[in-house]
Amino acid sequence: MSKIDKVVLAYSGGLDTSVIVRWLQETYGCEVVTFTADIGQGEEVEPARAKAEALGVKEIYIDDLREEYVRDFVFPMFRANTIYEGEYLLGTSIARPLIAKRLIEIANETGADAISHGATGKGNDQVRFELGAYALKPGIQVIAPWREWDLGSRDSLMNYCEKHKIPVDFSSGKKKSPYSMDANLLHISYEGGILEDPWAEAEEDMWRWSVSPEAAPDKPTYITLTFENGDPVALDGERLSPATMLETLNKLGGDNGIGRLDIVENRYVGMKSRGCYETPGGTILLRAHRAIESITLDREVAHMKDELMPRYAKLIYNGYWWSPEREMLQAAIDQSQSVVNGEVRLKLYKGSVTAVGRRSEDSLFDARIATFEDDAGAYDQKDAEGFIKLNALRLRIAAGKGRDLL
Amino acid sequence: MSKIDKVVLAYSGGLDTSVIVRWLQETYGCEVVTFTADIGQGEEVEPARAKAEALGVKEIYIDDLREEYVRDFVFPMFRANTIYEGEYLLGTSIARPLIAKRLIEIANETGADAISHGATGKGNDQVRFELGAYALKPGIQVIAPWREWDLGSRDSLMNYCEKHKIPVDFSSGKKKSPYSMDANLLHISYEGGILEDPWAEAEEDMWRWSVSPEAAPDKPTYITLTFENGDPVALDGERLSPATMLETLNKLGGDNGIGRLDIVENRYVGMKSRGCYETPGGTILLRAHRAIESITLDREVAHMKDELMPRYAKLIYNGYWWSPEREMLQAAIDQSQSVVNGEVRLKLYKGSVTAVGRRSEDSLFDARIATFEDDAGAYDQKDAEGFIKLNALRLRIAAGKGRDLL
Amino acid sequence: MSKIDKVVLAYSGGLDTSVIVRWLQETYGCEVVTFTADIGQGEEVEPARAKAEALGVKEIYIDDLREEYVRDFVFPMFRANTIYEGEYLLGTSIARPLIAKRLIEIANETGADAISHGATGKGNDQVRFELGAYALKPGIQVIAPWREWDLGSRDSLMNYCEKHKIPVDFSSGKKKSPYSMDANLLHISYEGGILEDPWAEAEEDMWRWSVSPEAAPDKPTYITLTFENGDPVALDGERLSPATMLETLNKLGGDNGIGRLDIVENRYVGMKSRGCYETPGGTILLRAHRAIESITLDREVAHMKDELMPRYAKLIYNGYWWSPEREMLQAAIDQSQSVVNGEVRLKLYKGSVTAVGRRSEDSLFDARIATFEDDAGAYDQKDAEGFIKLNALRLRIAAGKGRDLL
Amino acid sequence: MSKIDKVVLAYSGGLDTSVIVRWLQETYGCEVVTFTADIGQGEEVEPARAKAEALGVKEIYIDDLREEYVRDFVFPMFRANTIYEGEYLLGTSIARPLIAKRLIEIANETGADAISHGATGKGNDQVRFELGAYALKPGIQVIAPWREWDLGSRDSLMNYCEKHKIPVDFSSGKKKSPYSMDANLLHISYEGGILEDPWAEAEEDMWRWSVSPEAAPDKPTYITLTFENGDPVALDGERLSPATMLETLNKLGGDNGIGRLDIVENRYVGMKSRGCYETPGGTILLRAHRAIESITLDREVAHMKDELMPRYAKLIYNGYWWSPEREMLQAAIDQSQSVVNGEVRLKLYKGSVTAVGRRSEDSLFDARIATFEDDAGAYDQKDAEGFIKLNALRLRIAAGKGRDLL
Repeated sequence: MSKIDKVVLAYSGGLDTSVIVRWLQETYGCEVVTFTADIGQGEEVEPARAKAEALGVKEIYIDDLREEYVRDFVFPMFRANTIYEGEYLLGTSIARPLIAKRLIEIANETGADAISHGATGKGNDQVRFELGAYALKPGIQVIAPWREWDLGSRDSLMNYCEKHKIPVDFSSGKKKSPYSMDANLLHISYEGGILEDPWAEAEEDMWRWSVSPEAAPDKPTYITLTFENGDPVALDGERLSPATMLETLNKLGGDNGIGRLDIVENRYVGMKSRGCYETPGGTILLRAHRAIESITLDREVAHMKDELMPRYAKLIYNGYWWSPEREMLQAAIDQSQSVVNGEVRLKLYKGSVTAVGRRSEDSLFDARIATFEDDAGAYDQKDAEGFIKLNALRLRIAAGKGRDLL
Repeated sequence: MSKIDKVVLAYSGGLDTSVIVRWLQETYGCEVVTFTADIGQGEEVEPARAKAEALGVKEIYIDDLREEYVRDFVFPMFRANTIYEGEYLLGTSIARPLIAKRLIEIANETGADAISHGATGKGNDQVRFELGAYALKPGIQVIAPWREWDLGSRDSLMNYCEKHKIPVDFSSGKKKSPYSMDANLLHISYEGGILEDPWAEAEEDMWRWSVSPEAAPDKPTYITLTFENGDPVALDGERLSPATMLETLNKLGGDNGIGRLDIVENRYVGMKSRGCYETPGGTILLRAHRAIESITLDREVAHMKDELMPRYAKLIYNGYWWSPEREMLQAAIDQSQSVVNGEVRLKLYKGSVTAVGRRSEDSLFDARIATFEDDAGAYDQKDAEGFIKLNALRLRIAAGKGRDLL
Repeated sequence: MSKIDKVVLAYSGGLDTSVIVRWLQETYGCEVVTFTADIGQGEEVEPARAKAEALGVKEIYIDDLREEYVRDFVFPMFRANTIYEGEYLLGTSIARPLIAKRLIEIANETGADAISHGATGKGNDQVRFELGAYALKPGIQVIAPWREWDLGSRDSLMNYCEKHKIPVDFSSGKKKSPYSMDANLLHISYEGGILEDPWAEAEEDMWRWSVSPEAAPDKPTYITLTFENGDPVALDGERLSPATMLETLNKLGGDNGIGRLDIVENRYVGMKSRGCYETPGGTILLRAHRAIESITLDREVAHMKDELMPRYAKLIYNGYWWSPEREMLQAAIDQSQSVVNGEVRLKLYKGSVTAVGRRSEDSLFDARIATFEDDAGAYDQKDAEGFIKLNALRLRIAAGKGRDLL
Repeated sequence: MSKIDKVVLAYSGGLDTSVIVRWLQETYGCEVVTFTADIGQGEEVEPARAKAEALGVKEIYIDDLREEYVRDFVFPMFRANTIYEGEYLLGTSIARPLIAKRLIEIANETGADAISHGATGKGNDQVRFELGAYALKPGIQVIAPWREWDLGSRDSLMNYCEKHKIPVDFSSGKKKSPYSMDANLLHISYEGGILEDPWAEAEEDMWRWSVSPEAAPDKPTYITLTFENGDPVALDGERLSPATMLETLNKLGGDNGIGRLDIVENRYVGMKSRGCYETPGGTILLRAHRAIESITLDREVAHMKDELMPRYAKLIYNGYWWSPEREMLQAAIDQSQSVVNGEVRLKLYKGSVTAVGRRSEDSLFDARIATFEDDAGAYDQKDAEGFIKLNALRLRIAAGKGRDLL
């Protein structure tokens, strides 16, 4: 065991990370710095201060990172229309690099030699926290209690609390859920419980951010989103900060039953896992971003983005936000977005979001050329013959040599 | 102008292709063979016989290709979870190679030296028909009247009809629509009219295959799809032929308001174009296929499929179904599907389709490993440390040399 | 035929383009502006002035574009280690976008409404010139005489010269070659003649820039190249301008028998074509650039570059240098190169070029970690176990379920 | 420590693996089965029998795997023109999955519950052996002594030998080299020693399989290779078995100074490492395979192979030969090779190998179309205009809207 003097812990204020505070103090004989971030999880962060103080923590960081989170992580990711495995909007994955960055910044400020987190040894989050930490501060040490200790069961955890006088009501902040949940401004996730059987349907009362489509209003809601450089900047004409934008879209989406997802995904550590997600604002944003790109992006640029996207998504999912290859891809993605400006009109209705209109000063849609009506010579149909003939040439030569495609 | 003796025409029985029959006879002095296919467009094909006879056609082909269409074109495409530009299910594109193949088969049977079609010089369909034809019979000649004649306006077309005694009621089979429409078992499409303004919302009464989510039942419909080798073979336990499967899913989807799409897409000929689509069964099928893959496919295979998919979609959209590169990709896709067996339970409700359960004899989901509960040693959490450490090594070395990612 | 008042012609001063001057004047009744560029083809460009004047040309542009060519086209391309179809260094392809750009600049300066070039209708160069021109000036008209006129045979061309009093010795600048050749600072190419039989070996006396390996010195030549931001900036410690660098490497490479290539390539217009190339400096540069990247680039960045490269090469080969998708890829490539600094030591010997040493302030090579000797704890071999175990997990689960890979 | 009864060891007969035999016996109290394979490393394998017997081994496997190795591993890999990081022909990587497969087969035959190997914890080979083993037999246990024991230094190893009476002359089979070497039919590799300084040139006397280009004959050697389905089957008209083919090409290449390589590569475990390689036959084969593909493969198939190749190479390098994603890619690659038939004529001369001729019944090269001479109407140059115009359309529209590429 390396000698550790001070460790920065990602501290939620809940029971598990409170136990970790004490465990770190006991096991490593080190000072613990707690870091609690508001990234839009929907719970007060300030109460974490008193809890940390009660555990003897002297350096306590409580930060509101919501704007930074949406501006520097969520929006850049959405520029790529990012989806993991065809369906997942990466709501957990994209929050982790910000936490990792802040842990390291605090380690630098406080002279800590280690960081710690409460993620288990089976999941992706440990990877995301630790790859980020190592990439930003190569000499940092990482303590992952769930991989080290023997407090794996609820009983042993409770015994530890009793023995170390950790108030068990630390865990009482919310109604006990049978699911493991995680939330931030982009989404809320559910795992565990009956979801561990992929054949079992999630219960209706599991979902927290959205009404069911049944319960959504019978009248559609129309909104207009304005984009600049690929990012949404105004809603129905009103400019909103990144975090306010996402909060507002979450409310609109949730009210209209939008953004629920139930999937089995492939974790980086090698296993399949069932997860349910609510991403109301993100679901709207993805549809809207594709719509504004559909009239402003060049075809080949759009296709190249689509071909690169799965790899970009995989990088983020696997925890490589802080990596040179992500930055290389981001350079390409961002380069494409300077023309992604304009407005998208969307219809939100009982679980679905439809782009019903899009317009832009940068539109490449040319009605004069595309029209079924007389185009006044804007397009010479005869060009198509040569186009087809030469595109067919290699196929004709092959067929002429007897190659048979049937 | 090459000497042409006999031409096989893709003949719908409608006004435009009826004009083409006469125009081919007049312009090329050649015999015309008509070919009319039922690919599920929802109109009788048999009436085309009398119309063709009235135009003096002696060799008339009327084929029911529905099963072949779904079995050999739609299903193979869905094995790849194919979507063009993130949203379009390729309902028009995938029908064209079958038409091209049949045109060539008939040309071979009848000794024709040319084929002809009624697609315009601005669209993708001309490319798809002609690339297919050239690839399957390199010496074939192609006549694309819309690129040659001067009957571009409705008036000139009507004049031509009058002059050549073509009964105008050939066009009266259906209520006149302001949209250019195309349908087959996979979808119905709408273009033109007010859709030429991408800011204008499609009118509710344009949609023909699906009710609006508002009008859909207030109770969800649950169905179970069984897959074998990546293809759906049974619905709620009843085995269905490919065409019957898709027809049934269309009905179920349409009744529940599923599968409407409104996009601006990039055509192969270089322009952007607005299109609205209804693909009820296909939308269900895509979701279901991803769900069954989610528990049966290896992670890296799934990711590779996702990375190849945009290119595969582009090949089909651009008309290269009959090409060696599509066959090469298909070999990889099909190779992956032997394990894609099992059942998916789906909830259809007011426009949305959700996979709520999935199970399979070939499932790789291992609850024993993924569980949040005690896994009895199935997974050693300590392995994660080495995994992370070595994955981080290159990043740590770089950071240690002063590379800064912030 | 559109009305054309003034056309800018890419004019070599040779017979063919001299005929084009007259043909344009005759056919279009327009004024011709000639543009002759020195891009290192190894012939004097100034003589073109008198020839153009003799043909009645009033606006004559003669530019030395060698530095711009290497700096803004060749070097950016080499940052990607670009090779087409595994072997071809794109020596012709990369020169065309510069010519296209200059033609358009001159058209803008002189108020010309058209450009013209002497490329045939079978090759790639017409595509490269014209795509570039259209992309930079969408309203420009393009005249491609070889696609229009009936002077396809040498005889008819000679007759035209006689009839129009074009001095035939315009063509006499160099020894008549049986090959169609093209040269610029990056390479010289040979096509046609006996090369049209891909089984026939090229004759030794065809090659012009390099000695045969046999004739090369018996002693190796060692050189050291210094790179900054991915570009070579100094040779054996002496800073050289881009064009001088490439000229010098050409000399060194040619003297040592380096850079000959004999391939069959796939043209964009759909046919296969045999070409022989000499690219002495480029061959050295490619090897050297890979060597400096090998110690300075992150692994995943290097791999992503390798995976993107074939598409980047194809874009350039097909004529899409001036396209948003090339610029998007270039942004990613260039982003990766800020760390590509340092020195490479190369051995040039009888046709081969070997990187024998590489060093850099930005090196990520860490002998302390890689060593076979005692590494003093820099690397913990035990980490490998967890790394392998988790990477194997999905494979073990699959095998445990009976999946058989044999 | 798990209870292990019997372990199959990849046994070379050298000192290190002899020590491992004893160490396994001592440490695990288990029976050791040795497996020694001839994969063309150029040393007798039979002497390993007596050594194993002397160590008390009762079950001894000595196999000649040369034909299987080349036929089922090397040739399939060469069908993809596989190169790692632009230069490395994967000579070590491709031999490992065969060893892994055989270890597991022997474990199954002998009822062993573990396998073991002599690869260190820093390299790629441990990963390749173990991923393969786990993929083929998920319950197998793996013992990697170099990651477990404390015999890391030469001294401690010698002490161990003395203490356990292992004859030290087990190591005396060959002249002691300052390099760590590995050989099989595809290549010989060198690492360590002065190569750990990437600026230091390899010494001439390090190379064992090839003469220096200086020492190669002054006259070129011409050979003709015949391919069937992408694999070389005959040399100068004489059919050769796979292993004999590669052996013969190694001799020819080595005699002509072909196939030396000096690179810094990126290991899967995260570090950069300097390696020198001699791959004489493989270098010839790669060039020849590309040449036969150049006339027989469709352009788009060839390009897709080039784009997939880096990922395929990475899979093999990283040890994922036995994986479903490799098999999926292989299906695509193999699907493309049925037309790769014909002959390539090659010139071997002083370190370089040039394809000087290629011919095939399946050739798509059509001199009639490609010719600079009169093509008798095989190609209509006017088609190029429409081809270019439509390919340019999106670029013109964008430029017309003010998009500026300069």
